[in-house]
Amino acid sequence: MTDNYFSTRKTVRKFSDRPVDMALVRNMLEKASHAPTTGNMQLYSVVITQDSENIQQLAKSHFSQPASTGAKMLVTFCADFNRFEKWCKHSNAVPGYENFQSFVAAMLDAIILCQQFNTIAEMNGLGCCYLGTTTYNADSIASTLKLPNRVVPVATLAIGWPDGEANVTDRILPEGFIHEETYKDYSDNDIENVFGYKDLLAENKSFIEQNGKETLAQVFTDVRYPRGNNELFSDKFVEYLKANKFL
Amino acid sequence: MTDNYFSTRKTVRKFSDRPVDMALVRNMLEKASHAPTTGNMQLYSVVITQDSENIQQLAKSHFSQPASTGAKMLVTFCADFNRFEKWCKHSNAVPGYENFQSFVAAMLDAIILCQQFNTIAEMNGLGCCYLGTTTYNADSIASTLKLPNRVVPVATLAIGWPDGEANVTDRILPEGFIHEETYKDYSDNDIENVFGYKDLLAENKSFIEQNGKETLAQVFTDVRYPRGNNELFSDKFVEYLKANKFL
Repeated sequence: MTDNYFSTRKTVRKFSDRPVDMALVRNMLEKASHAPTTGNMQLYSVVITQDSENIQQLAKSHFSQPASTGAKMLVTFCADFNRFEKWCKHSNAVPGYENFQSFVAAMLDAIILCQQFNTIAEMNGLGCCYLGTTTYNADSIASTLKLPNRVVPVATLAIGWPDGEANVTDRILPEGFIHEETYKDYSDNDIENVFGYKDLLAENKSFIEQNGKETLAQVFTDVRYPRGNNELFSDKFVEYLKANKFL
Repeated sequence: MTDNYFSTRKTVRKFSDRPVDMALVRNMLEKASHAPTTGNMQLYSVVITQDSENIQQLAKSHFSQPASTGAKMLVTFCADFNRFEKWCKHSNAVPGYENFQSFVAAMLDAIILCQQFNTIAEMNGLGCCYLGTTTYNADSIASTLKLPNRVVPVATLAIGWPDGEANVTDRILPEGFIHEETYKDYSDNDIENVFGYKDLLAENKSFIEQNGKETLAQVFTDVRYPRGNNELFSDKFVEYLKANKFL
């Protein structure tokens, strides 16, 4: 069953009205906290949004995508040096973590916890969807969740009990991303072998057509993740990290 | 069994002589690749180091810590926009990913894959240890693994079959990192409640004594993760990201 889970897991974006029990979530987070963490520092905090008005308010920072507005719970995973630095000062120690490697370590801790929680929640039958917009609007998320300085939201899971059946999404073959001993760069032929099937999938064909594009890659570069957006939200996030003394 | 796994997993740093089968690793990576990924872009590559001379060479970038020199295999997870951009160009699309949000997305993808692989490997009885030094020496790792531009190593797992029994490490209680609706900042009393037990653990007491310190926090700030190192390796990594056009 476990083996089967990993190959057949699916992202769920539609949730039923059934509420998500807080005690279950707390229990799953406790389990997830045994995941690896940098030097056992646990440089993360988790903010759980369950109140329906708060969910709608927070969803605005995620561009009100349906998975966020329809979620029964939003779980925001933050890179957190605030708590650790307070402990250092409480323990007569002088912290030196106002720098980028410290942010990287805390982001690693938060993402590892988030993914472990995602796995445990899905194994318990819950549906989960990562909201990839968390670092786009870190500032407004921080404002909604009242995050203090030195706490940076890096990932959000929309969760709930699934409504209907989601689909398993295609993946490239492992040969497409595994390299032995050294990185073998991709020839044009390799790229065709790795990605060629994607433009031929029925769901991608209609996706390309709906967006008035010639190729699936153009949907990514021109519609889903266009340069202008990427640059705008990069500048915003860099400013946010500087204001939090991580850059 | 699955439920029990999550609460009792342990990091393994000592490995037996038994080799790790490449077909098993490939199979586990295939399973792990079904983990969530930004817009299904799979912005990662994995470099597997199995040759014993190559392991010793790569371990130097991890300060030859015993878990790296004693590993039967080192698995380096990289944030990779090289492959995706080659696909865009191959598909008559113009990529706009030379910015920081694109690095964040690729780092998320790589870490999520890494943690999913870690879970699957441990469930299969393998021992794993994250090497937290990967972003410290991204440049020399890139040189050893022949990573092209736009490919950034962000996490490494040392793996092998366990030699002896490792210990389950302590964690703070979930109340210490969970916040409901909004972040409740920590009073001095809260900090004592969250972390107070740590200085009293027998293993930490001897760790503090060995390092000639008064508190466990001082071991972190003065010995394990001191300001000077953090700043030096932050500057190096920022330079590396700039050279790779992610900053």
